[in-house]
Amino acid sequence: MTDRDAILKINQAFYKAFEALDFDAMCNIWSQQETDVCIHPGWEILFGWTMIKESWRAIFANTGYMRFEPSEVTSEIRGDLARITCVENIFSVVNDMTIHSRVACTNLFARHEEGWRMVLHHGSPIASAQSMEPASSFGDDPN
Amino acid sequence: MTDRDAILKINQAFYKAFEALDFDAMCNIWSQQETDVCIHPGWEILFGWTMIKESWRAIFANTGYMRFEPSEVTSEIRGDLARITCVENIFSVVNDMTIHSRVACTNLFARHEEGWRMVLHHGSPIASAQSMEPASSFGDDPN
Repeated sequence: MTDRDAILKINQAFYKAFEALDFDAMCNIWSQQETDVCIHPGWEILFGWTMIKESWRAIFANTGYMRFEPSEVTSEIRGDLARITCVENIFSVVNDMTIHSRVACTNLFARHEEGWRMVLHHGSPIASAQSMEPASSFGDDPN
Repeated sequence: MTDRDAILKINQAFYKAFEALDFDAMCNIWSQQETDVCIHPGWEILFGWTMIKESWRAIFANTGYMRFEPSEVTSEIRGDLARITCVENIFSVVNDMTIHSRVACTNLFARHEEGWRMVLHHGSPIASAQSMEPASSFGDDPN
């Protein structure tokens, strides 16, 4: 597998873990170092795995079903550090309406002995990028 | 100069160029490649130097004086790619009030023959992090 394929694969695994609210899967994606950084949309910067881990635990405990569809995915790999940017198209259902939000995202991965691991996640809301439609269309094709 | 010192120096030069609304200085900081990425707070992702350059031209043409004070600066360097995250404390004056905004920021730099150059800038507003005070205190120490 090329480095680019490996990066895209773990980036996809990140969104699958988020979608599944799977805490253990999320933990396995991160390098789990104290140099790790995470910036959730609108949040202060979280430094180090200890704080980042607790943020995912809290988010997963307070989040309902969401579907993630990354788009506009680009990558740059230099040696042992790789960057992906993408738009997270997030679909959720509130009061029978499907809400589509768009989040601009930078993800960084570092090469470890066991493979590439996330060392930074930075998501930020794209202004005026939210739309709504009746939720019936949401259930038709969950994939 | 160590890599870390060089990264911190160009990161500081980025904010000085922004503060001075100095288009040429801003251009010199970037690698000016079509793989460059820029996400201004709330904006869509800008891909490539052509679009990024025009965004700075537009921002500088429509922005008054702002003062930048980076805080919570951390860095990680791996080979030819380096990451800085910081909080941009931005002070501006609107209607005689000093507005203090906080933006969470990821900056990436790549090693080029002529030195480190910016390849990604991602800024995102920190929710509820804006405060205001009378502008008289703003003028006392513009540096």
